[in-house]
Amino acid sequence: MRVYLAGPCVFLPDPVARGTALKAICARHGLTGVYPLDPLEGEPQSWADLHEAFRISRRNEAHIASCDALVANLMPFRGPSADVGTVFELGFMRALGRPVFGWSNDARGFADRTRAVTGVAGAADQDGMLIEDFGLSDNLMIEGAIHASGGAMVLGACGPDDIWTSLVAFEACVARVRALLG
Amino acid sequence: MRVYLAGPCVFLPDPVARGTALKAICARHGLTGVYPLDPLEGEPQSWADLHEAFRISRRNEAHIASCDALVANLMPFRGPSADVGTVFELGFMRALGRPVFGWSNDARGFADRTRAVTGVAGAADQDGMLIEDFGLSDNLMIEGAIHASGGAMVLGACGPDDIWTSLVAFEACVARVRALLG
Repeated sequence: MRVYLAGPCVFLPDPVARGTALKAICARHGLTGVYPLDPLEGEPQSWADLHEAFRISRRNEAHIASCDALVANLMPFRGPSADVGTVFELGFMRALGRPVFGWSNDARGFADRTRAVTGVAGAADQDGMLIEDFGLSDNLMIEGAIHASGGAMVLGACGPDDIWTSLVAFEACVARVRALLG
Repeated sequence: MRVYLAGPCVFLPDPVARGTALKAICARHGLTGVYPLDPLEGEPQSWADLHEAFRISRRNEAHIASCDALVANLMPFRGPSADVGTVFELGFMRALGRPVFGWSNDARGFADRTRAVTGVAGAADQDGMLIEDFGLSDNLMIEGAIHASGGAMVLGACGPDDIWTSLVAFEACVARVRALLG
Protein backbone atom coordinates (compact mmCIF):
# COMPACT_ATOMS: atom_id res chain seq x y z
CA MET A 1 0.00 0.00 0.00
CA ARG A 2 1.34 3.40 -1.05
CA VAL A 3 0.93 6.53 1.08
CA TYR A 4 1.63 10.05 -0.24
CA LEU A 5 3.51 12.15 2.32
CA ALA A 6 2.25 15.73 1.86
CA GLY A 7 3.74 18.54 3.88
CA PRO A 8 6.01 21.56 4.09
CA CYS A 9 8.80 19.09 4.98
CA VAL A 10 10.18 19.81 1.49
CA PHE A 11 11.03 23.34 2.72
CA LEU A 12 13.05 22.10 5.73
CA PRO A 13 16.83 22.64 5.67
CA ASP A 14 17.44 18.95 4.81
CA PRO A 15 14.32 17.83 2.94
CA VAL A 16 15.88 14.59 1.66
CA ALA A 17 16.82 13.36 5.14
CA ARG A 18 13.32 14.21 6.29
CA GLY A 19 11.82 12.13 3.49
CA THR A 20 14.05 9.21 4.40
CA ALA A 21 12.90 9.42 8.04
CA LEU A 22 9.21 9.56 7.06
CA LYS A 23 9.58 6.60 4.71
CA ALA A 24 11.38 4.53 7.36
CA ILE A 25 8.42 5.01 9.69
CA CYS A 26 5.99 4.00 6.91
CA ALA A 27 8.07 0.88 6.23
CA ARG A 28 7.95 -0.06 9.93
CA HIS A 29 4.16 -0.12 9.55
CA GLY A 30 4.21 -2.13 6.33
CA LEU A 31 3.50 0.86 4.06
CA THR A 32 5.40 2.46 1.18
CA GLY A 33 5.85 6.20 1.69
CA VAL A 34 5.87 8.33 -1.46
CA TYR A 35 7.63 11.68 -0.99
CA PRO A 36 7.15 14.77 -3.20
CA LEU A 37 10.85 14.77 -4.11
CA ASP A 38 10.77 11.17 -5.39
CA PRO A 39 11.38 10.71 -9.13
CA LEU A 40 8.28 9.70 -11.09
CA GLU A 41 8.52 6.39 -12.90
CA GLY A 42 7.56 6.79 -16.55
CA GLU A 43 7.52 10.59 -16.42
CA PRO A 44 6.41 11.86 -19.87
CA GLN A 45 9.29 13.15 -22.03
CA SER A 46 7.14 16.15 -22.95
CA TRP A 47 7.32 17.46 -19.39
CA ALA A 48 10.99 18.32 -19.93
CA ASP A 49 9.81 21.48 -21.72
CA LEU A 50 7.66 22.66 -18.82
CA HIS A 51 8.62 25.43 -16.37
CA GLU A 52 10.36 23.63 -13.47
CA ALA A 53 7.59 24.61 -11.05
CA PHE A 54 4.91 23.20 -13.34
CA ARG A 55 6.88 19.97 -13.82
CA ILE A 56 7.06 19.53 -10.03
CA SER A 57 3.32 20.21 -9.81
CA ARG A 58 2.46 17.58 -12.41
CA ARG A 59 4.82 15.09 -10.80
CA ASN A 60 3.22 15.56 -7.38
CA GLU A 61 -0.26 15.19 -8.85
CA ALA A 62 0.85 11.94 -10.50
CA HIS A 63 2.44 10.71 -7.26
CA ILE A 64 -0.82 11.36 -5.38
CA ALA A 65 -2.89 9.58 -8.03
CA SER A 66 -0.58 6.54 -7.66
CA CYS A 67 -1.20 6.24 -3.91
CA ASP A 68 -3.85 4.53 -1.80
CA ALA A 69 -3.98 7.19 0.92
CA LEU A 70 -2.49 10.57 1.83
CA VAL A 71 -0.93 11.73 5.10
CA ALA A 72 -0.62 15.51 5.44
CA ASN A 73 1.65 17.43 7.78
CA LEU A 74 -0.84 20.15 8.76
CA MET A 75 1.51 22.20 10.98
CA PRO A 76 0.66 25.89 10.75
CA PHE A 77 3.00 27.41 8.20
CA ARG A 78 3.65 31.18 8.10
CA GLY A 79 0.17 31.94 9.41
CA PRO A 80 -2.65 30.26 11.34
CA SER A 81 -3.25 27.55 8.70
CA ALA A 82 -1.37 24.67 7.11
CA ASP A 83 0.84 25.05 4.03
CA VAL A 84 -1.40 25.67 0.99
CA GLY A 85 0.55 23.25 -1.22
CA THR A 86 -0.17 20.50 1.29
CA VAL A 87 -3.85 21.45 1.50
CA PHE A 88 -4.15 21.50 -2.30
CA GLU A 89 -2.84 17.93 -2.32
CA LEU A 90 -5.26 16.88 0.41
CA GLY A 91 -8.18 18.27 -1.62
CA PHE A 92 -6.87 16.52 -4.73
CA MET A 93 -6.75 13.13 -3.01
CA ARG A 94 -10.14 13.67 -1.38
CA ALA A 95 -11.71 14.17 -4.83
CA LEU A 96 -10.16 10.87 -5.91
CA GLY A 97 -12.26 9.27 -3.14
CA ARG A 98 -9.35 7.82 -1.17
CA PRO A 99 -8.68 8.28 2.56
CA VAL A 100 -6.85 11.40 3.74
CA PHE A 101 -5.16 11.81 7.12
CA GLY A 102 -3.60 14.75 8.92
CA TRP A 103 -1.17 15.29 11.78
CA SER A 104 0.28 18.30 13.53
CA ASN A 105 2.49 19.09 16.51
CA ASP A 106 0.43 22.22 17.25
CA ALA A 107 -2.56 21.10 19.31
CA ARG A 108 -4.16 24.57 19.59
CA GLY A 109 -7.58 25.05 18.01
CA PHE A 110 -7.87 26.99 14.75
CA ALA A 111 -9.76 29.93 16.29
CA ASP A 112 -7.24 30.36 19.13
CA ARG A 113 -4.35 30.19 16.66
CA THR A 114 -6.00 32.69 14.31
CA ARG A 115 -6.59 35.09 17.21
CA ALA A 116 -2.96 34.71 18.27
CA VAL A 117 -1.68 35.48 14.75
CA THR A 118 -4.08 38.38 14.07
CA GLY A 119 -3.87 39.79 17.60
CA VAL A 120 -7.63 40.15 18.00
CA ALA A 121 -9.85 38.66 20.70
CA GLY A 122 -13.28 38.76 19.06
CA ALA A 123 -15.20 37.05 16.29
CA ALA A 124 -13.57 38.98 13.42
CA ASP A 125 -10.07 40.15 12.52
CA GLN A 126 -8.87 43.72 11.91
CA ASP A 127 -10.26 43.62 8.33
CA GLY A 128 -13.69 42.68 9.70
CA MET A 129 -13.31 39.14 8.36
CA LEU A 130 -14.86 36.33 10.38
CA ILE A 131 -12.63 34.06 12.46
CA GLU A 132 -13.87 30.52 11.79
CA ASP A 133 -14.65 28.88 15.13
CA PHE A 134 -16.06 25.36 14.92
CA GLY A 135 -13.68 23.79 17.46
CA LEU A 136 -11.57 22.25 14.67
CA SER A 137 -7.82 22.39 14.14
CA ASP A 138 -7.93 24.28 10.80
CA ASN A 139 -10.37 25.36 8.05
CA LEU A 140 -13.44 23.11 7.96
CA MET A 141 -12.75 21.83 4.43
CA ILE A 142 -9.62 20.11 5.77
CA GLU A 143 -11.01 18.24 8.75
CA GLY A 144 -14.34 17.77 6.95
CA ALA A 145 -12.53 15.87 4.19
CA ILE A 146 -10.53 13.82 6.68
CA HIS A 147 -13.74 12.87 8.51
CA ALA A 148 -15.75 12.10 5.36
CA SER A 149 -12.97 9.98 3.85
CA GLY A 150 -12.64 7.71 6.89
CA GLY A 151 -9.23 9.14 7.82
CA ALA A 152 -8.07 10.65 11.10
CA MET A 153 -6.52 13.84 12.45
CA VAL A 154 -3.73 13.20 14.96
CA LEU A 155 -2.54 16.04 17.18
CA GLY A 156 0.79 15.68 18.95
CA ALA A 157 2.24 17.68 21.77
CA CYS A 158 5.93 18.45 22.01
CA GLY A 159 8.19 21.22 23.19
CA PRO A 160 8.60 24.34 21.01
CA ASP A 161 12.10 23.21 19.96
CA ASP A 162 10.78 19.93 18.54
CA ILE A 163 7.82 21.32 16.66
CA TRP A 164 9.38 20.69 13.22
CA THR A 165 11.37 17.60 14.21
CA SER A 166 9.15 15.39 16.39
CA LEU A 167 7.58 12.55 14.40
CA VAL A 168 5.61 11.00 17.27
CA ALA A 169 2.27 12.29 15.94
CA PHE A 170 3.28 11.33 12.39
CA GLU A 171 3.96 7.75 13.46
CA ALA A 172 0.62 7.58 15.33
CA CYS A 173 -1.04 8.82 12.14
CA VAL A 174 0.73 6.20 9.99
CA ALA A 175 -0.50 3.51 12.40
CA ARG A 176 -4.05 4.77 11.79
CA VAL A 177 -3.52 4.55 8.02
CA ARG A 178 -2.30 1.00 8.39
CA ALA A 179 -5.29 0.07 10.55
CA LEU A 180 -7.71 1.48 7.94
CA LEU A 181 -6.02 0.05 4.84
CA GLY A 182 -5.43 -3.32 6.53
CA MET B 1 -22.43 26.26 -17.51
CA ARG B 2 -21.90 26.27 -13.75
CA VAL B 3 -18.90 27.87 -12.08
CA TYR B 4 -17.99 27.30 -8.42
CA LEU B 5 -16.94 30.55 -6.70
CA ALA B 6 -14.26 29.57 -4.18
CA GLY B 7 -12.77 32.18 -1.88
CA PRO B 8 -12.55 33.73 1.56
CA CYS B 9 -15.48 35.97 0.51
CA VAL B 10 -17.59 33.89 2.92
CA PHE B 11 -15.62 35.50 5.79
CA LEU B 12 -16.36 39.09 4.64
CA PRO B 13 -18.71 41.20 6.82
CA ASP B 14 -21.59 40.70 4.34
CA PRO B 15 -20.91 37.36 2.64
CA VAL B 16 -24.40 37.08 1.13
CA ALA B 17 -24.18 40.44 -0.67
CA ARG B 18 -20.76 39.44 -1.93
CA GLY B 19 -22.15 36.20 -3.36
CA THR B 20 -24.95 38.13 -5.08
CA ALA B 21 -22.40 40.49 -6.67
CA LEU B 22 -20.20 37.61 -7.88
CA LYS B 23 -23.20 35.77 -9.35
CA ALA B 24 -24.42 38.90 -11.16
CA ILE B 25 -21.04 39.17 -12.90
CA CYS B 26 -21.19 35.48 -13.87
CA ALA B 27 -24.70 35.99 -15.27
CA ARG B 28 -23.48 38.93 -17.38
CA HIS B 29 -21.08 36.48 -19.00
CA GLY B 30 -23.70 33.78 -19.52
CA LEU B 31 -22.54 31.62 -16.61
CA THR B 32 -24.24 30.37 -13.44
CA GLY B 33 -22.21 31.17 -10.35
CA VAL B 34 -22.44 28.66 -7.50
CA TYR B 35 -21.55 30.14 -4.09
CA PRO B 36 -20.46 28.15 -1.02
CA LEU B 37 -23.43 29.48 0.99
CA ASP B 38 -26.00 28.27 -1.58
CA PRO B 39 -28.37 25.53 -0.42
CA LEU B 40 -27.69 22.13 -1.97
CA GLU B 41 -30.54 20.65 -3.96
CA GLY B 42 -31.30 17.12 -2.81
CA GLU B 43 -29.06 17.32 0.25
CA PRO B 44 -29.13 13.89 1.96
CA GLN B 45 -31.34 13.78 5.08
CA SER B 46 -28.58 11.90 6.89
CA TRP B 47 -26.35 14.99 6.83
CA ALA B 48 -28.64 16.65 9.39
CA ASP B 49 -26.87 14.60 12.06
CA LEU B 50 -23.40 15.83 11.07
CA HIS B 51 -21.41 18.48 12.95
CA GLU B 52 -22.33 21.78 11.25
CA ALA B 53 -18.75 22.26 9.98
CA PHE B 54 -18.73 18.80 8.41
CA ARG B 55 -22.13 19.41 6.80
CA ILE B 56 -20.81 22.63 5.22
CA SER B 57 -17.73 20.73 4.01
CA ARG B 58 -19.82 17.98 2.35
CA ARG B 59 -22.13 20.58 0.80
CA ASN B 60 -19.21 22.50 -0.70
CA GLU B 61 -17.67 19.32 -2.07
CA ALA B 62 -21.03 18.48 -3.69
CA HIS B 63 -21.35 22.01 -5.09
CA ILE B 64 -17.89 21.73 -6.68
CA ALA B 65 -18.67 18.31 -8.17
CA SER B 66 -21.81 19.83 -9.76
CA CYS B 67 -19.85 22.57 -11.58
CA ASP B 68 -18.02 22.75 -14.91
CA ALA B 69 -15.21 25.00 -13.70
CA LEU B 70 -13.92 26.69 -10.55
CA VAL B 71 -12.85 30.31 -10.01
CA ALA B 72 -10.78 30.89 -6.88
CA ASN B 73 -10.21 34.17 -5.05
CA LEU B 74 -6.51 33.66 -4.26
CA MET B 75 -5.96 36.87 -2.30
CA PRO B 76 -3.40 36.34 0.44
CA PHE B 77 -5.31 35.60 3.63
CA ARG B 78 -3.67 36.01 7.07
CA GLY B 79 -0.24 35.14 5.67
CA PRO B 80 1.62 35.09 2.36
CA SER B 81 -0.69 32.50 0.75
CA ALA B 82 -4.33 32.15 -0.22
CA ASP B 83 -7.03 30.88 2.13
CA VAL B 84 -6.52 27.13 2.68
CA GLY B 85 -10.23 26.31 2.32
CA THR B 86 -10.15 27.89 -1.13
CA VAL B 87 -6.99 26.03 -2.08
CA PHE B 88 -8.46 22.74 -0.86
CA GLU B 89 -11.39 23.32 -3.22
CA LEU B 90 -9.09 24.17 -6.11
CA GLY B 91 -7.20 20.89 -5.59
CA PHE B 92 -10.50 19.01 -5.37
CA MET B 93 -11.73 20.39 -8.70
CA ARG B 94 -8.34 19.83 -10.34
CA ALA B 95 -8.54 16.12 -9.46
CA LEU B 96 -11.96 15.99 -11.12
CA GLY B 97 -10.17 17.03 -14.33
CA ARG B 98 -12.09 20.26 -14.87
CA PRO B 99 -10.61 23.72 -15.49
CA VAL B 100 -9.57 25.83 -12.49
CA PHE B 101 -8.98 29.59 -12.54
CA GLY B 102 -7.57 32.06 -10.03
CA TRP B 103 -7.67 35.80 -9.46
CA SER B 104 -6.16 38.17 -6.92
CA ASN B 105 -5.89 41.89 -6.30
CA ASP B 106 -2.39 41.43 -4.91
CA ALA B 107 -0.01 41.41 -7.87
CA ARG B 108 3.18 40.86 -5.85
CA GLY B 109 5.10 37.64 -6.45
CA PHE B 110 4.91 34.85 -3.85
CA ALA B 111 8.58 35.14 -2.83
CA ASP B 112 8.36 38.91 -2.29
CA ARG B 113 5.17 38.52 -0.30
CA THR B 114 6.65 35.72 1.83
CA ARG B 115 9.72 37.85 2.56
CA ALA B 116 7.48 40.78 3.51
CA VAL B 117 5.45 38.62 5.93
CA THR B 118 8.42 36.80 7.47
CA GLY B 119 10.67 39.86 7.51
CA VAL B 120 13.65 38.07 5.99
CA ALA B 121 15.56 38.98 2.85
CA GLY B 122 17.24 35.72 1.93
CA ALA B 123 16.36 32.28 0.59
CA ALA B 124 15.02 30.90 3.90
CA ASP B 125 12.87 32.17 6.77
CA GLN B 126 13.79 32.47 10.48
CA ASP B 127 13.07 28.74 10.98
CA GLY B 128 15.51 27.89 8.16
CA MET B 129 12.66 26.89 5.89
CA LEU B 130 13.05 27.58 2.19
CA ILE B 131 11.16 30.48 0.60
CA GLU B 132 9.71 29.12 -2.66
CA ASP B 133 10.83 31.37 -5.50
CA PHE B 134 9.70 30.30 -8.96
CA GLY B 135 8.34 33.68 -10.05
CA LEU B 136 4.76 32.54 -9.42
CA SER B 137 1.99 34.22 -7.43
CA ASP B 138 1.63 31.47 -4.78
CA ASN B 139 2.69 27.86 -4.04
CA LEU B 140 3.49 25.97 -7.25
CA MET B 141 0.70 23.41 -6.80
CA ILE B 142 -1.84 26.22 -7.25
CA GLU B 143 -0.58 27.84 -10.43
CA GLY B 144 0.63 24.46 -11.73
CA ALA B 145 -2.93 23.14 -11.52
CA ILE B 146 -4.36 26.26 -13.17
CA HIS B 147 -1.85 25.92 -16.02
CA ALA B 148 -2.31 22.17 -16.48
CA SER B 149 -6.11 22.42 -16.45
CA GLY B 150 -6.24 25.04 -19.22
CA GLY B 151 -7.36 27.78 -16.83
CA ALA B 152 -5.83 31.20 -16.18
CA MET B 153 -4.48 33.27 -13.29
CA VAL B 154 -5.64 36.90 -13.45
CA LEU B 155 -3.85 39.50 -11.31
CA GLY B 156 -5.56 42.84 -10.73
CA ALA B 157 -4.15 46.04 -9.37
CA CYS B 158 -6.16 48.36 -7.15
CA GLY B 159 -5.62 50.70 -4.25
CA PRO B 160 -5.12 49.23 -0.74
CA ASP B 161 -8.65 50.31 0.26
CA ASP B 162 -10.24 48.29 -2.54
CA ILE B 163 -8.25 45.10 -2.10
CA TRP B 164 -11.25 43.15 -0.73
CA THR B 165 -13.92 44.98 -2.73
CA SER B 166 -12.65 45.44 -6.31
CA LEU B 167 -14.08 42.84 -8.67
CA VAL B 168 -12.30 44.02 -11.82
CA ALA B 169 -9.86 41.09 -11.81
CA PHE B 170 -12.70 38.71 -10.93
CA GLU B 171 -14.71 39.85 -13.93
CA ALA B 172 -11.67 39.50 -16.22
CA CYS B 173 -11.26 35.96 -14.87
CA VAL B 174 -14.92 35.11 -15.48
CA ALA B 175 -14.51 36.31 -19.08
CA ARG B 176 -11.62 33.84 -19.43
CA VAL B 177 -13.81 31.03 -18.09
CA ARG B 178 -16.51 31.90 -20.58
CA ALA B 179 -14.00 31.97 -23.45
CA LEU B 180 -12.70 28.50 -22.49
CA LEU B 181 -16.06 26.84 -21.84
CA GLY B 182 -17.63 28.46 -24.91
